[in-house]
Amino acid sequence: MSFAAVDVIRAKRDGGVLSDAQIDWVVDAYTRGQVADEQMSALAMAILLRGMTDAEIARWTAAMIASGERLDLSKVARPTVDKHSTGGVGDKITLPLTPLVAACGAAVPQLSGRGLGHTGGTLDKLESIPGWRAALSNEEFLAQLGDVGAVICQAGEGLAPADRKLYALRDVTGTVEAIPLIASSIMSKKIAEGTGALVLDVKVGTGAFMKSVEDARELARTMVELGRAHGVDTVALLTDMNTPLGRTIGNAVEVQESLDVLAGGGPADVVELTLALAREMLSAAGLSDVDPADALHDGRAMDSWRAMIRAQGGDPDAPLPVANEVEQVRAERSGIVASVDAIGIGLAAWRLGAGRARKEDPVSAAAGVVLHKRPGERVAAGDVLYELRADDPARLPAARQDAASAVVVGDGPAPVRPLIIDRIG
Amino acid sequence: MSFAAVDVIRAKRDGGVLSDAQIDWVVDAYTRGQVADEQMSALAMAILLRGMTDAEIARWTAAMIASGERLDLSKVARPTVDKHSTGGVGDKITLPLTPLVAACGAAVPQLSGRGLGHTGGTLDKLESIPGWRAALSNEEFLAQLGDVGAVICQAGEGLAPADRKLYALRDVTGTVEAIPLIASSIMSKKIAEGTGALVLDVKVGTGAFMKSVEDARELARTMVELGRAHGVDTVALLTDMNTPLGRTIGNAVEVQESLDVLAGGGPADVVELTLALAREMLSAAGLSDVDPADALHDGRAMDSWRAMIRAQGGDPDAPLPVANEVEQVRAERSGIVASVDAIGIGLAAWRLGAGRARKEDPVSAAAGVVLHKRPGERVAAGDVLYELRADDPARLPAARQDAASAVVVGDGPAPVRPLIIDRIG
Repeated sequence: MSFAAVDVIRAKRDGGVLSDAQIDWVVDAYTRGQVADEQMSALAMAILLRGMTDAEIARWTAAMIASGERLDLSKVARPTVDKHSTGGVGDKITLPLTPLVAACGAAVPQLSGRGLGHTGGTLDKLESIPGWRAALSNEEFLAQLGDVGAVICQAGEGLAPADRKLYALRDVTGTVEAIPLIASSIMSKKIAEGTGALVLDVKVGTGAFMKSVEDARELARTMVELGRAHGVDTVALLTDMNTPLGRTIGNAVEVQESLDVLAGGGPADVVELTLALAREMLSAAGLSDVDPADALHDGRAMDSWRAMIRAQGGDPDAPLPVANEVEQVRAERSGIVASVDAIGIGLAAWRLGAGRARKEDPVSAAAGVVLHKRPGERVAAGDVLYELRADDPARLPAARQDAASAVVVGDGPAPVRPLIIDRIG
Repeated sequence: MSFAAVDVIRAKRDGGVLSDAQIDWVVDAYTRGQVADEQMSALAMAILLRGMTDAEIARWTAAMIASGERLDLSKVARPTVDKHSTGGVGDKITLPLTPLVAACGAAVPQLSGRGLGHTGGTLDKLESIPGWRAALSNEEFLAQLGDVGAVICQAGEGLAPADRKLYALRDVTGTVEAIPLIASSIMSKKIAEGTGALVLDVKVGTGAFMKSVEDARELARTMVELGRAHGVDTVALLTDMNTPLGRTIGNAVEVQESLDVLAGGGPADVVELTLALAREMLSAAGLSDVDPADALHDGRAMDSWRAMIRAQGGDPDAPLPVANEVEQVRAERSGIVASVDAIGIGLAAWRLGAGRARKEDPVSAAAGVVLHKRPGERVAAGDVLYELRADDPARLPAARQDAASAVVVGDGPAPVRPLIIDRIG
């Protein structure tokens, strides 16, 4: 069936519900270039402002999946389970989590992306490891998933091509923040990837897309419904993103912190979230009797990491890149760190070169921010609060201001925020 | 000052008021191609759904005027006054009105457009006159305005180029129906054209953009404000467009009906609206003591028409094109015509070839609909209700259905609708 694009746009603009046939047509025609970018962006804005019913979101997601291939992981002997984070500052959790869950007996088919803006990309982080490569063929991906149980690689061009095109368009047209479009974008890729179960980490706070718990809960609920409608057992955790995760924000520095966690150490919040997500994943994979904390402490998770990195050409023993410029910023007064704002630190790391402004930009492996003090920690005047790291000294000045206004030292105890806010599923 | 397009889009998306600097920048950057079509269409949709304040609309209009030249008519000895209709079915009023007002002592600088969709274009109608040309240079335009006092020609490329680009974009992105964008589009062209005064004919009804009197009144009020803010004395009439104007809908057939009016005859509704608008225009031009009815009856308006057509290469005595195919549709029953729906008849004329689907399409000079009966007129079974005219017989079947469902014969008297609903200004 064929429609005029302008009639589909008008229907949503006027608050109507799109029919299944209209949704199938517009997603397919856009993918094939028969609906123009300017038409899809007007439709995306109408969807953002008018919303979509659950049935429309489910159909839109199905149409995006149908725009490409859907991987078949049925030949993988272990149960498959994946995790997706909606993006945060210092969110390196995928790095320790994937080999940890594989070490506990599941297979984790983590198809991932690069960062854009202030939230880093998992592939960018791993590419700071000498030799490691993000691109695998479908055959390599399936073989590694069977052998190692852990794969973090770039999603192939064949998965949900409608989403790839639409995502790039939304980025430049102010239509990123539509819950129906966020939910369908994430879930179309994850469902097409073929995972049997999925755990979502939906971030809430200044450093996240979702600024309010209500919006985050709505997004989580929508995605959990979508997963189940497509036979993927899905649960979501709502987690705090007002403060960066851990003490490192960047690429190589986040790999180093992940290695600390895999070695049984690391910052308490990173360990807590890694274990919480691992338990959800193992439960979803039917392995709820396995305690992932054991695998962190007895070295099995680290072994799994090393195998995963080697399988993709990386040298797990090679030294990580070091920044040319390291600027230590010291406290001007004594007190207790009241807050470290995720968005400010995320922007500082981005300005230092850890992230990209446009998708064709390179990133610096060594750039980033290292926090010496986190909220609630005591500081004396003259103590190092944080470090700014960059390859290019010209990048320091712009980052200084974002970082300085993000870190606040006060007198009283810092407010205590739970890291895990809610569970939906 | 420079902005990121996405920040301007987001501000309006979230219900904010755009700053003068944002509006100036986005209109200028779009005209120069630095804001992409897909960004402007998302912004247009946000404007449609979120609205604009009067101050935003005024600034947007000023920015569109500033995107091109503004004509200087100060050397024209007579007072200048123009008219604009928001578009209707059978709306040939510009044709008799322009020479009529010129015959009464004003100068009418009517820069006009071509039709798109079911409402015809004044230039398309005049182009059915052998030899007549729509394109004049600025010098030719000014000379004719001084000599004849009446010009109907194509707006030059230099007037409000931002509007030309935006109008084409809105047409394919479902963003035509935004009152701020309609008002600024119309008024930027009319103000740039340099007229001293302006009378607006805002149509309401099935055949018009505005379906409700409330929306039409809001559009009229917005445009009257915009005109005054730019020093153009502006008033608006709200007029009925549930029924086509007159008995002809097409190109050559509407020229013929206009000639009837200029000869002192013609359908009552066309004469009534022509005289009402002429009185408003003459009053705005400071010529309220002149009665335009005299000029229709003593031949001065026809003389003015002939001079206007000749000045643009047309032969006022040449026969008009005649359709190859004329299909007479007869009444199946006796009664009184209850209604002739403007949109149905407009679509039928469009399908017969009088209008275009895409802006590069040609139009047929001879195609159209001729009504033998109008609402309130008695009909006997077998009487001709209307004629469908086309060059290409293949166009008849699609038009038959639209026309047949538009004309309803009943038993009681037809509802009486006033042609002129309100006056704003």
